[in-house]
Amino acid sequence: MATSVPTKEPRKREPHAPGKFRRVIEQMAPYVPGEQPKPGERLIKLNTNENPYPPSPRVGRAVARAMAAGALRLYPPPRADEFVQAAARLYDFPSSMILAGNGSDELLAMLFRATLGRNDKVAYALPTYSLYDTLASIQEARVTRVPLGANFALPLDKLGRQAARLTIVCSPNSPCGTLADHDALDQLARKLADRLLVIDEAYVDFAQGNALDLARRHENVVVLRTLSKSFSLAGMRLGLCFAHAGVITELQKVKDSYNLNRLAIVAGAAAINDLDWMRRNAARVVSTRALTENRLRSIGFEVPPSQANFVLARLAGKDMALVATGLRRRGVLVRHFPRSVFYDGLRISIGTPAEMSALFAALPPLVKPLIGSCQKAATP
Amino acid sequence: MATSVPTKEPRKREPHAPGKFRRVIEQMAPYVPGEQPKPGERLIKLNTNENPYPPSPRVGRAVARAMAAGALRLYPPPRADEFVQAAARLYDFPSSMILAGNGSDELLAMLFRATLGRNDKVAYALPTYSLYDTLASIQEARVTRVPLGANFALPLDKLGRQAARLTIVCSPNSPCGTLADHDALDQLARKLADRLLVIDEAYVDFAQGNALDLARRHENVVVLRTLSKSFSLAGMRLGLCFAHAGVITELQKVKDSYNLNRLAIVAGAAAINDLDWMRRNAARVVSTRALTENRLRSIGFEVPPSQANFVLARLAGKDMALVATGLRRRGVLVRHFPRSVFYDGLRISIGTPAEMSALFAALPPLVKPLIGSCQKAATP
Repeated sequence: MATSVPTKEPRKREPHAPGKFRRVIEQMAPYVPGEQPKPGERLIKLNTNENPYPPSPRVGRAVARAMAAGALRLYPPPRADEFVQAAARLYDFPSSMILAGNGSDELLAMLFRATLGRNDKVAYALPTYSLYDTLASIQEARVTRVPLGANFALPLDKLGRQAARLTIVCSPNSPCGTLADHDALDQLARKLADRLLVIDEAYVDFAQGNALDLARRHENVVVLRTLSKSFSLAGMRLGLCFAHAGVITELQKVKDSYNLNRLAIVAGAAAINDLDWMRRNAARVVSTRALTENRLRSIGFEVPPSQANFVLARLAGKDMALVATGLRRRGVLVRHFPRSVFYDGLRISIGTPAEMSALFAALPPLVKPLIGSCQKAATP
Repeated sequence: MATSVPTKEPRKREPHAPGKFRRVIEQMAPYVPGEQPKPGERLIKLNTNENPYPPSPRVGRAVARAMAAGALRLYPPPRADEFVQAAARLYDFPSSMILAGNGSDELLAMLFRATLGRNDKVAYALPTYSLYDTLASIQEARVTRVPLGANFALPLDKLGRQAARLTIVCSPNSPCGTLADHDALDQLARKLADRLLVIDEAYVDFAQGNALDLARRHENVVVLRTLSKSFSLAGMRLGLCFAHAGVITELQKVKDSYNLNRLAIVAGAAAINDLDWMRRNAARVVSTRALTENRLRSIGFEVPPSQANFVLARLAGKDMALVATGLRRRGVLVRHFPRSVFYDGLRISIGTPAEMSALFAALPPLVKPLIGSCQKAATP
């Protein structure tokens, strides 16, 4: 069942209410990103889906070249040309159909800002990337969250029936790693003609298949990519948006004029131009992911088959908050989403084999009591 | 007289009107930044107020160190700690009163987004930084533009009488370079208690005096700074916002989680830590500015005394579009604002003495016909 949840803002406020800020801003809670260790803290970081392997060495060389050329005193090209052109070549899209973002988070923010006025409807799965909720609140949009189907499947049919002005499908979805069916996405795009369908493919380089061709074929489809995960560049904030030129034109109106700095632009171009490097690292992550899933299942977790660089490890009905804090005490950061649908799960990013070994050394004693009670509950 | 100009959006639209984008976005024109030469184009760039001198050499060393440390695969600290802490030390503010932006443009966008709902009022001078208009349109805000007073003075009294939810004073103002009186700003802040007063000090390092203390003393004052001009880092996108902690908290809710990348953070900290370098370059610009003003006046231009790193050169009533294109043909880029209050002026950034000589070689033949007719008009 779809649940239609308006933002907290009361419907009838005075348009010129006193106060420094919009009421909806004062009332909203900020988006809380995963914990970032402080400098010097030695933690195994499996909480924000970063790549455990470094970016292409070409990135360092490109940054050094740009520094030597000494152009930092000049504004960057507003459309990040070098980065966009590298993406155009790699993905075989015209540059006019690509927009670069300061991370795909910025591209998501632009999409919400350009499409949603107050009470306009936005629809996405429950659960999914929780930033969507924050962006919807800022726009005072009306949010419809459609629960996942059986086997954690993305609820594409039900999302289509919402006929929202903006529909977002995170594929592979966070935190469960499920990929949306390509043909079903194609049908959804047809069904939502004249409304935007955003396919957030942040994790798709770890999946079998992607939906980039739909951005070419449908005027209402936007595909988002990021260099944060597969290209190992979370620290450089690089995102890409693929869509028809008319969509790009509207998004540019709500873009900061110079949204990528000069070093980000050359770093992004260099990374994109070394596809083999990315693919080798992604393959290593996918291989470690398979081992991780099996090992978690052997401990007793339910683990949906993941197409991303993380896995969801669930013990149905057991709050995992204490397991997450226990792991942190043992030097391993994973992500727990309290008060969410998957309060009974941990989202674990795939690290190096050594990092996963550290996780598996720390995990069993923490979950043993819970698994015992699970089994008891299962056999009354 | 103040002019109250609503955005183009018709007042009564259907909240769920069909279409991919908000109607106001489809109708608005994008903000057009100054021309950026293409790679290989050899132009003297006096059009976007960049610093003609390079940033501190510490910036290059800091970037090289960060690259060697190899942390690009990890997300950056969401609050850009190292940069904020450097600013806290330099300006003697607690870190809780500082927010870092991806350029001060991003901080301006956050301020508009956090404070202005549909039909909420924003007030600023006419003319001023034209990005404010774009940001107001995105929020569907009601804009009051108050014309400058005599001698290009910022109209602080009249702005106060507007009692807008958000008031912005660009000081020194663009494109005429006038600084707002400190005591008058102080009074304006008192008058606007419970409403935000933003003092956009992008150019203040070239001025005599600033209003940073007002952000410390008044809970409703926000002071914005940028490293694009005086610190020679336009290409790195670094801005700073100073305000009481309660204001910073609300702004963070509309900030992208990781808005500065890792290299921007270390570059910003390194630049801030080399204040002497910035001051030496600013002093050189100020000295060239004085010579430029005199020379322009001797040609026949009206030039308001500038406190910024640019000057406005006017020939009252003469459209300067052809002069700007003529200069461009001769390899010199300056800024002309067509269809604006100062269509009869050129905003000329202060470059090196050699760059200004190139300007003065190209300019006289282009303006001679205009000045002739000016003089004739003045002596009928």
